[in-house]
Amino acid sequence: MIGDPLPSERLEGQLLPKHLALPIFASDPLSSVAYAPQELLMILLLGGLSFLAFAPWVALAVVVLLVTVVLSYRQLVKAYPSGGGDYEVAHKNLGEKAGLVVASALLVDYVMTVVVSVASGVDNIISALPWLAPFRVELAVFFVIVLAAVNLRGVSESSKAFAIPTYIFIGSVFLMIVVGLGQTIFGTAPVAASAAYTVQGEQLTQAAIVLLLLRSFASGCSALTGVEAIANGVPAFRLPKVKNAQHTLVIMGGIAITLFVGLTALALISNVHYAENPCSLQGWAECATAPQLSLMAQIAAAVFGNSTIMFFLIQAATALVLLLAANTAFNGFPLLGSVLAKDGYAPKSLSTRGDRLIYSNGVLLLGLAAILILVVFQANLTVLIQLYIIGVFVSFTLGQTGMVRHWLRELKTPGAHRGSIVKSLSINALGAGMTGIVLVVVTITKFTHGAWIVFVMMPILFLLMMGVNRYYRDVATEVEADPTTTFGATGDHAIVLVGKVQKPVLKALDYAIAARHESLEAVHVSIDDEETKQVKKDWVRMNIQVPLRIIQSPYRDLSYPVIRHVKDRRAEHGSEVTTIYMPQYIVGHWWESLLHNHKARRIRQKLMLVHGVTIALVPWLLDSSDLLYGRRSRPLPGQDRRGEPVRPVPRAPMPPAMITTTTVAPPPVAPGVSRPAASRRRKRK
Amino acid sequence: MIGDPLPSERLEGQLLPKHLALPIFASDPLSSVAYAPQELLMILLLGGLSFLAFAPWVALAVVVLLVTVVLSYRQLVKAYPSGGGDYEVAHKNLGEKAGLVVASALLVDYVMTVVVSVASGVDNIISALPWLAPFRVELAVFFVIVLAAVNLRGVSESSKAFAIPTYIFIGSVFLMIVVGLGQTIFGTAPVAASAAYTVQGEQLTQAAIVLLLLRSFASGCSALTGVEAIANGVPAFRLPKVKNAQHTLVIMGGIAITLFVGLTALALISNVHYAENPCSLQGWAECATAPQLSLMAQIAAAVFGNSTIMFFLIQAATALVLLLAANTAFNGFPLLGSVLAKDGYAPKSLSTRGDRLIYSNGVLLLGLAAILILVVFQANLTVLIQLYIIGVFVSFTLGQTGMVRHWLRELKTPGAHRGSIVKSLSINALGAGMTGIVLVVVTITKFTHGAWIVFVMMPILFLLMMGVNRYYRDVATEVEADPTTTFGATGDHAIVLVGKVQKPVLKALDYAIAARHESLEAVHVSIDDEETKQVKKDWVRMNIQVPLRIIQSPYRDLSYPVIRHVKDRRAEHGSEVTTIYMPQYIVGHWWESLLHNHKARRIRQKLMLVHGVTIALVPWLLDSSDLLYGRRSRPLPGQDRRGEPVRPVPRAPMPPAMITTTTVAPPPVAPGVSRPAASRRRKRK
Repeated sequence: MIGDPLPSERLEGQLLPKHLALPIFASDPLSSVAYAPQELLMILLLGGLSFLAFAPWVALAVVVLLVTVVLSYRQLVKAYPSGGGDYEVAHKNLGEKAGLVVASALLVDYVMTVVVSVASGVDNIISALPWLAPFRVELAVFFVIVLAAVNLRGVSESSKAFAIPTYIFIGSVFLMIVVGLGQTIFGTAPVAASAAYTVQGEQLTQAAIVLLLLRSFASGCSALTGVEAIANGVPAFRLPKVKNAQHTLVIMGGIAITLFVGLTALALISNVHYAENPCSLQGWAECATAPQLSLMAQIAAAVFGNSTIMFFLIQAATALVLLLAANTAFNGFPLLGSVLAKDGYAPKSLSTRGDRLIYSNGVLLLGLAAILILVVFQANLTVLIQLYIIGVFVSFTLGQTGMVRHWLRELKTPGAHRGSIVKSLSINALGAGMTGIVLVVVTITKFTHGAWIVFVMMPILFLLMMGVNRYYRDVATEVEADPTTTFGATGDHAIVLVGKVQKPVLKALDYAIAARHESLEAVHVSIDDEETKQVKKDWVRMNIQVPLRIIQSPYRDLSYPVIRHVKDRRAEHGSEVTTIYMPQYIVGHWWESLLHNHKARRIRQKLMLVHGVTIALVPWLLDSSDLLYGRRSRPLPGQDRRGEPVRPVPRAPMPPAMITTTTVAPPPVAPGVSRPAASRRRKRK
Repeated sequence: MIGDPLPSERLEGQLLPKHLALPIFASDPLSSVAYAPQELLMILLLGGLSFLAFAPWVALAVVVLLVTVVLSYRQLVKAYPSGGGDYEVAHKNLGEKAGLVVASALLVDYVMTVVVSVASGVDNIISALPWLAPFRVELAVFFVIVLAAVNLRGVSESSKAFAIPTYIFIGSVFLMIVVGLGQTIFGTAPVAASAAYTVQGEQLTQAAIVLLLLRSFASGCSALTGVEAIANGVPAFRLPKVKNAQHTLVIMGGIAITLFVGLTALALISNVHYAENPCSLQGWAECATAPQLSLMAQIAAAVFGNSTIMFFLIQAATALVLLLAANTAFNGFPLLGSVLAKDGYAPKSLSTRGDRLIYSNGVLLLGLAAILILVVFQANLTVLIQLYIIGVFVSFTLGQTGMVRHWLRELKTPGAHRGSIVKSLSINALGAGMTGIVLVVVTITKFTHGAWIVFVMMPILFLLMMGVNRYYRDVATEVEADPTTTFGATGDHAIVLVGKVQKPVLKALDYAIAARHESLEAVHVSIDDEETKQVKKDWVRMNIQVPLRIIQSPYRDLSYPVIRHVKDRRAEHGSEVTTIYMPQYIVGHWWESLLHNHKARRIRQKLMLVHGVTIALVPWLLDSSDLLYGRRSRPLPGQDRRGEPVRPVPRAPMPPAMITTTTVAPPPVAPGVSRPAASRRRKRK
């Protein structure tokens, strides 16, 4: 159905069945019910206790929006199953700029997913273990470091261990809702610890009331964060990918709505009073010293009792699922990076599969940004949520708008299935409209509460990506082969740089001899008389049949005398190619590379600036490099979501059918690179 | 007199005359009089006002020690003029371990020089501008960042701009002492702002009194920090280097003693009462809110008046000279690194002249360590001084002990000048004894006050350096050419890796053709059908006469198919050398390197692990690389102290006399690297 360029039978085993895909992709959207009801009710409570009466209506609006968004993404999954998500849709349908706006929004989102999930996770840990309250920020930073370390080390998300916490979370919270509602029906409704505290509402104008309701709605919309995760992960699903992904999306939506509604209802029934400023809660003496318990913790304590196993289980599962949600950002970030790189908006290296160095940098960057934000905002969940929602709704709105464009274009295609297209179109149009309105609401209500930072960061990222794109385009023009491209080097000289006469140099010398250059010489730059004497002595002792040229360097510079020598030769011999042989140490430990090759690298960099020079690196494998052979490749962040096998299975020998030798040799009209000598080369030794 | 391996007449212009060497090397030792008297008196004051009567005696002890140390270093300069300082002396005379102890002490010292000088500088700035008091730590961190930035950028210490603040400092403080003493003689002795405050002394036991006096002496010994700077800078002096350095050392000692004694005397005359805990000063109401003025500021205010130009001049000169002292550490650090590297105790790269990357890392490391310590100890000068003195006296003591050993050995040399040697010996023995006693005193009195940190850091650095040394030794054994070393590669195949047919690849192809390998093929790894089709089309269109081999990579891995291919060939052709040509982009901006060469680097790293492979890098200079040609080399930290010219003067063409070609070709007994083909190569095109 969807073109699968990898041998399917082998890959299928690596792909995710629905019962694993659900927990892996849903930890992000489902974990948001841990904070969404709390933030929704908290904003309402700013108006006083009586405002809680609006809660069911605000929650209903959130649910309607959630249903719309889930249905919209069902369409998106069908139309764009390659995992590019909102970015791909906006890019293809609304153009480059819209795509980059979405991309920058998503990049900000990944950081905020880490930040908000970790902050909320710590909040729930502290609610269970209040003595940890003084270490809120430290704990949050600790968890980010742990997540970064795990992802730097490499971990396969598709393992079952990742699925268990999500299922425990869903199961235990669902059980809590059922038990709580049961207790209510049987007349012993749960009562929250904060039920007795009252809040003095301010006198609000009509306009202020509307604004407060809108703010509450905007905060409740944090329940929608992460819904796009499945749309980005379609390639990781088992066949039929689209069907499976759509199905999983709907199941996830159903669970999210159930949990969101259930938790909001239980909070209202048990009279959870959660305040932005704890000391506005009248009747609570220790407001300044004790931490305010999270809504989840208050409900769990009300339903199951304060120190019961179920209470701790729910808190632990909530914290774990939130940390898993943070982990998804560490996986999504490199994935988006590779999509952007493929389109030329990010360094091409990001699209190189398996470049651990690149992924490491991405993980470190994400971790550092998250830590910075957590420290600056003191891991305060309420403030952080403000920053989060903007980015989410920017990508929602542009993605859905792109879908509308997509269906409009499809409609014009002759022979299109008009009926189903119109249905899809209207769903996405509704989604675009609603998320657009919410974006406006969120922007208005949150801008002064910190969301302006997002509006600073997004343009910076946008401009960076545009700059990278322009740069690559310029370079491509610069290196494009044009009809006037001629090279035509003539002459072939080789130099072996000799420092000390050691095995690596002897190997380089051996290779240089084997390459049968027209002329070959060994060059030693003398900066230390003792060393030079030793080199001469070794040369004689070993009876090396290559002329040794010793160049004095009165200023102790190693590269300049060689450069001078090459230039002098070139002045004499015309456009000669000079191959300079240098030994290169290959080491097994990262720290060994601090101890080798620096001098050689410097000389190489300078020599490469000279016309006609090629550097031939002759590797010398130190004993420690054996480690490199035994080293297993570890899973990279985002690999599972991409639906890629863990390693390129390099054991089986390549079947000969895959190697096709195409020798092309028509009449000569060539630009420089053709030359009569080429025929000589065909006869093999 | 001392062997000067560089063309002297050209270099002489770069070397320092005494009137410039004094301020450059003396900013560190002279600036210490800004804090030494203050710390000395402050500790005495812990015992109550009456203890200030001991001050002259304690100061006298410090002066005697200072004289001894200066005279000791006069001997050291004569015996070891190469700039290795205490490290070299200890290493050569007391063995490897003692040398490394000194080296680790010096490394700690460099960090502490930055920390203490900056902290004291900020203290004096705050004394002049008290409204800056709340930003003490921020200011200190800011100055460290500025210093690091200046040194990363590169700045020549030998410029006159560096000399002026030191002379202003010496001149203005000297003037202040003269004026203050004059006022005293004429009966209008200066009165410090804190003269009226009294201190309630505790009842002290006999032992506690002795301990307090010793602590005061230990703190006063901070006046000795930096004295070794001149001994490390001998190579930078004009000829006759030793005479000039010795002379400068004595002048510096004289100035330091004058300033130290003068400031201590004025502080006692004007009744400066500086307390460790400001609120122990009875009669000072704002002790908790206002900053305590530094001793320097109190004297300046007492002598010249509170807001006079002279007051601000002295504070500004003091702060500046302290920042210059901090700057010396940024210069000394790479210098010590290069000496250690030459001896094999630090990465060899540190001895590479002009590797800006290495120096940058050193500067960054030093800056970060200083910032960390400043933040942890809140830029509290009194606490930081405790950490400082230990390291200083460790290197003093071991250096002087090494000198004693040196002279004892000299005595045994037949025909030695016994008289002068015995004199030198006794001076150094006195120095070793006194600094040894002070080291014990300092350790006892400061250990619990934070000096234990130094005793943790030093062994760590010691073990690191030992480890590096052992590693290099092992590698040297591993790569040593032994009689059984044979290589004997036969066969010569070349592969040009082709991604897209662009200019860089065409250039690589051209060079590969020019190198006339026995066989040559172009290899394209196909991971994208579109791209492969384009490559094939270009190949035909451009009529390239090199066979093109296309290898399908079903797992989208770029290196594995090539490795497979090389191994298959090797299985068929025996120990063949395969030269793999890869284009390499050369760029002009640092950020461009983020956007290029990563994929190539990864492939290269994997290919280098295959037996018989040489990587030929064919540089492609992007337009931006033009920048590299115009780039002037900037001075490196430590260059001036090393007595090196700023750049290797590469304009004049090298005279032919400097190029000596030594061709050695005696009878054949060779280990592998000789082969008959070598003769063919001698005839040039």
